[in-house]
Amino acid sequence: MKALIYQGPSKNSLSEHAKPEIIEPTDAIVKMTKTTICGTDLHILKGDVATCKPGRILGHEGVGIVETIGPAVSIFKPGDHVLISCVSACGRCEYCRRQMFSHCTTGGWILGNTIDGTQAEFVRIPYADNSLYPIPDGADEDALVMLSDILPTGFECGVLNGKITPGSTVAIVGSGPIGLAALLTAQFFSPGEIIMIDLDDNRLEVAKRFGATATINSRDGKAAEAVMKLTGNRGVDTAIEAVGIPTTFVLCGEIIAAGGTIANIGVHGGKVDLHLEKLWDRNIFITTRLVDTVSTPMLLKILQAKKIDPTRLITHHFKLADILQAYETFAHAADTRALKVIIDA
Amino acid sequence: MKALIYQGPSKNSLSEHAKPEIIEPTDAIVKMTKTTICGTDLHILKGDVATCKPGRILGHEGVGIVETIGPAVSIFKPGDHVLISCVSACGRCEYCRRQMFSHCTTGGWILGNTIDGTQAEFVRIPYADNSLYPIPDGADEDALVMLSDILPTGFECGVLNGKITPGSTVAIVGSGPIGLAALLTAQFFSPGEIIMIDLDDNRLEVAKRFGATATINSRDGKAAEAVMKLTGNRGVDTAIEAVGIPTTFVLCGEIIAAGGTIANIGVHGGKVDLHLEKLWDRNIFITTRLVDTVSTPMLLKILQAKKIDPTRLITHHFKLADILQAYETFAHAADTRALKVIIDA
Amino acid sequence: MKALIYQGPSKNSLSEHAKPEIIEPTDAIVKMTKTTICGTDLHILKGDVATCKPGRILGHEGVGIVETIGPAVSIFKPGDHVLISCVSACGRCEYCRRQMFSHCTTGGWILGNTIDGTQAEFVRIPYADNSLYPIPDGADEDALVMLSDILPTGFECGVLNGKITPGSTVAIVGSGPIGLAALLTAQFFSPGEIIMIDLDDNRLEVAKRFGATATINSRDGKAAEAVMKLTGNRGVDTAIEAVGIPTTFVLCGEIIAAGGTIANIGVHGGKVDLHLEKLWDRNIFITTRLVDTVSTPMLLKILQAKKIDPTRLITHHFKLADILQAYETFAHAADTRALKVIIDA
Amino acid sequence: MKALIYQGPSKNSLSEHAKPEIIEPTDAIVKMTKTTICGTDLHILKGDVATCKPGRILGHEGVGIVETIGPAVSIFKPGDHVLISCVSACGRCEYCRRQMFSHCTTGGWILGNTIDGTQAEFVRIPYADNSLYPIPDGADEDALVMLSDILPTGFECGVLNGKITPGSTVAIVGSGPIGLAALLTAQFFSPGEIIMIDLDDNRLEVAKRFGATATINSRDGKAAEAVMKLTGNRGVDTAIEAVGIPTTFVLCGEIIAAGGTIANIGVHGGKVDLHLEKLWDRNIFITTRLVDTVSTPMLLKILQAKKIDPTRLITHHFKLADILQAYETFAHAADTRALKVIIDA
Repeated sequence: MKALIYQGPSKNSLSEHAKPEIIEPTDAIVKMTKTTICGTDLHILKGDVATCKPGRILGHEGVGIVETIGPAVSIFKPGDHVLISCVSACGRCEYCRRQMFSHCTTGGWILGNTIDGTQAEFVRIPYADNSLYPIPDGADEDALVMLSDILPTGFECGVLNGKITPGSTVAIVGSGPIGLAALLTAQFFSPGEIIMIDLDDNRLEVAKRFGATATINSRDGKAAEAVMKLTGNRGVDTAIEAVGIPTTFVLCGEIIAAGGTIANIGVHGGKVDLHLEKLWDRNIFITTRLVDTVSTPMLLKILQAKKIDPTRLITHHFKLADILQAYETFAHAADTRALKVIIDA
Repeated sequence: MKALIYQGPSKNSLSEHAKPEIIEPTDAIVKMTKTTICGTDLHILKGDVATCKPGRILGHEGVGIVETIGPAVSIFKPGDHVLISCVSACGRCEYCRRQMFSHCTTGGWILGNTIDGTQAEFVRIPYADNSLYPIPDGADEDALVMLSDILPTGFECGVLNGKITPGSTVAIVGSGPIGLAALLTAQFFSPGEIIMIDLDDNRLEVAKRFGATATINSRDGKAAEAVMKLTGNRGVDTAIEAVGIPTTFVLCGEIIAAGGTIANIGVHGGKVDLHLEKLWDRNIFITTRLVDTVSTPMLLKILQAKKIDPTRLITHHFKLADILQAYETFAHAADTRALKVIIDA
Repeated sequence: MKALIYQGPSKNSLSEHAKPEIIEPTDAIVKMTKTTICGTDLHILKGDVATCKPGRILGHEGVGIVETIGPAVSIFKPGDHVLISCVSACGRCEYCRRQMFSHCTTGGWILGNTIDGTQAEFVRIPYADNSLYPIPDGADEDALVMLSDILPTGFECGVLNGKITPGSTVAIVGSGPIGLAALLTAQFFSPGEIIMIDLDDNRLEVAKRFGATATINSRDGKAAEAVMKLTGNRGVDTAIEAVGIPTTFVLCGEIIAAGGTIANIGVHGGKVDLHLEKLWDRNIFITTRLVDTVSTPMLLKILQAKKIDPTRLITHHFKLADILQAYETFAHAADTRALKVIIDA
Repeated sequence: MKALIYQGPSKNSLSEHAKPEIIEPTDAIVKMTKTTICGTDLHILKGDVATCKPGRILGHEGVGIVETIGPAVSIFKPGDHVLISCVSACGRCEYCRRQMFSHCTTGGWILGNTIDGTQAEFVRIPYADNSLYPIPDGADEDALVMLSDILPTGFECGVLNGKITPGSTVAIVGSGPIGLAALLTAQFFSPGEIIMIDLDDNRLEVAKRFGATATINSRDGKAAEAVMKLTGNRGVDTAIEAVGIPTTFVLCGEIIAAGGTIANIGVHGGKVDLHLEKLWDRNIFITTRLVDTVSTPMLLKILQAKKIDPTRLITHHFKLADILQAYETFAHAADTRALKVIIDA
């Protein structure tokens, strides 16, 4: 079969690869119909993800059709249309029992990382009963691809951890795909204000269309002042970090109101400064989280109720045969204005 | 009247001072019977607390008897025995309505800071109805002095924020009075293990007597290894920072289990390193808090039910006339083995 | 001044009455600009509310302008435009400190009940600092009248107690003003389905316009079957009782899903059957609540953010001089299709 | 093998029965070492449990040694000492994912009910990975048998649902094994007062020894008055119903404080009166729950930390050969003073 294979730093290839087979009784083989590329895939390509070795098929998102199942799979059968979760969950270990699927002792984020992933014609899904979701009749498959990773990530790590409440004031630092996913899902809780902060005017423009009540271009280094002005010098109840660099984390600490929550989504490569000399007595909360995809059933219901249109995040479509071009487009988002790209089988 | 007055860095005096009077209709004047000295008073004495100006009567803890009340005080009357909260709460502002008394817009920690405090024969208590508590009949007044600040601080900032649950594993970094207050109140929730960490063997010995299941002297710089060993390499569910320096905060990040909570109590004078490169995907919570004393009614009930004996924290007694000696004793805790000192009127 | 006075069962009058005066230092006198009539006022008129004696000025909702204040009022001053809460809160007692203003030991629902109310030219508001809210500039005063009682009641007793979550399934039994207030505020949390149940087709029609995803006329006694059919025999996650009679409460028990919550808003005059033989093992929650109006600040923010338009509940306007006619209109809602009526000063 | 078999109303037998075999890949066969008898087993014997048909091996509690495992069992292997949960959980369905194992769509309480149970030499355990727990080294197996059902039931349905907090006031109606299990586990949260109510002075005497701060014999019909007197007419914060008849449920409603929680544990055979005319405005919570055994890992940790001694519930020991005599002893608890009886293999 055709598959996108990581060949080491800065080198991906679209190559022939053996079709995956059932290994464990809880496995399913899924024929992919649609997948996408994640910012994390670009990190892998840079050589930043030590767990992912050359020769690995990338990808941890997508929808498809069950082809075969192991003897212990009971919920799905061949022919079922399924949504693939980016996180594999055994459903039995201490962490799965606490709904922390991200820390499953034998699962977690392994797809397209320590085992072969979804940017291929077929994929093996471990713990299929706990890691696949039935696709509701008539659902838009493009929309569903957004439920593999980006929407639950924005929602769980940003919105739920950020404890957004009706009428509250929210700032989202970073208006890339993840920040925009947080913006879309934040609106489930009817906050009063959502301030989006980014360096890219185009992305801020998109944020406005997606529901931001104010936008700030932080290139002048005065984003904190701007937020304090917008909030009557009170700060925001929730600050969501959706970039992953020291400056943006520090900014969150400068704009958080007493009693507020900083929800970190960003993947950080180094330590950050935490200004406890200013924050120790501010009664704040800081959270970190790798997505657990525990909210997937909830997101599926919201999608079905048409309370959200995740296809707004999709800017480009490619065929699997053109996936290298899709990577190019996605990697140069500032120029291509790419948010999420769909790869059709 | 006699009062302990801050005279600028490194200079306190026991001097004559005018007796306080009712200013606002919500004030009460309380004749002090017992007070104590807080670590914060030592910070003031070092000149570290910019809001506290020379000439100020120090002290924000104690018990006494209501002498006079303003016309809008309705819960208390002259002659009532009362516990004084270290935090003054108007009961009306946005923060008071959210039970964040520490951030009361016209109150908060003002006693012995921006207004005269309790280390005197009399004190003016603003918002008396919301800042004093009736003393239950037959209560031990020494024990009650511990409810002004240190017990609610350990309990709210450490134990409640740290989300301690039955059977869970807790580490408390710092075995001074605040760490020990957290240790005593942590036991309300029946954690399975409480590991105390400090540099002082005497304080660790006290911790053992107070209920610690293990103690670690961190002087060899290997406390993190020791905790990981004690917890089967899993880390602790709750890490309470009760010192206030960068090293101890970093230690908390090294020993926290996935899904755990770091509850900062320490007063920090500078920024700390937050190792998000290791923590971004660990699903942890970090909290900061200035005590709100919202738990005072709960602590009073627990005290009455004899579920805690706060007098275990008291090592020395002095008369108000000898308060300068009390400061000396408290300031040299390593030598004097002082935890909390009671100043009797 | 003119005032609507309860004269005993079935007898109200619009009479001259002495203007109220400051009694306690925490009082304010408010000149009414707008008020309304509550279902509870009709209960009083029927003689069903024993605490309300003849001679009482009715009314516990409205907006106005502060005329005079007592010496302990600090947040408001004469001339301020204010929203009146139906619940008076001392801000000091055990219940106020737990945010249960409804059970304030010297307040609670006393306006137009045990003390004179708002259906008059002036009203005395006890504990003004805790019981009035500043009106934001440019706010629609008709909309604000809905924030005195009906919106916080629907929101707190129905929506918050009912733990409505994004994507969840909700049934609201009763499509009168309270049920509709629950319907409007339920949408703050983006439930997937909201099923409204009533006997009156007109009210169900209104519910559809207000956002109900399905409506059921229960006159055939088959509402439970209809709900189970709509929910794939699963039942609803939240059932809100907004009528106050035994049949509607029992219906909630018949349609609640395992793990769901029945939130009672209705004022009940007698006991109801609780079918524990069917519910003991269903892991459900049942809540009762008298509105605390703790959500008023949140609702004010949501109103300002234009996330809700409460004026949709207003069907009629009257002058204070015509308040008896307003009562007639409101009392015969089935004919007049009245929801809420505004009484302008 | 030998097994206790339900032969229809009032008829149990100790008979020979075929040894169970693996049916599903997720099954394990466990050789029983210890089991016990539950109040529910007596209900079955009375013919009250329609789902349990004659010919069924009873029992849903116990500890044993894994004999064989199905191919999809990964956590356990033959020879492992295990605790058996009374609830079987697939770990995959909607309810398992919400930690409501009691409502697992293919599991729940099926052992000794719809499939053969533990009062035998061997038992088949479905979904072994999610329904068995490893026994810690050196643990007391008698104590562990109490963790199959009675302790998690008292803890989850009574204590957790009842939201017991430090210093709070609790009443437990019913001082049988379940009420006593609630009493033991309530103390994890350090309530200030625990009032036990029963008709049997012996059981109240046991309650006193187990930590009750007050006991009331309700035979005079004046338990409500007694509780109100003990609580200064305020009522209790938590009332736990541990009997399952209308009178005891009504009593809970009479003694609950405003803002309190009634946690029903009792198995009810008929409807009860809910006095909403008195409770609609009391801001109370009522909960029902079939035990989920989600707290088993927590209880195992607490047991290991020696914070509880569940063997205090054990009054008698029998051999499996004498299980009919054990039933007699347990069924006549008033005379035999039996609480829990252990059946050794």
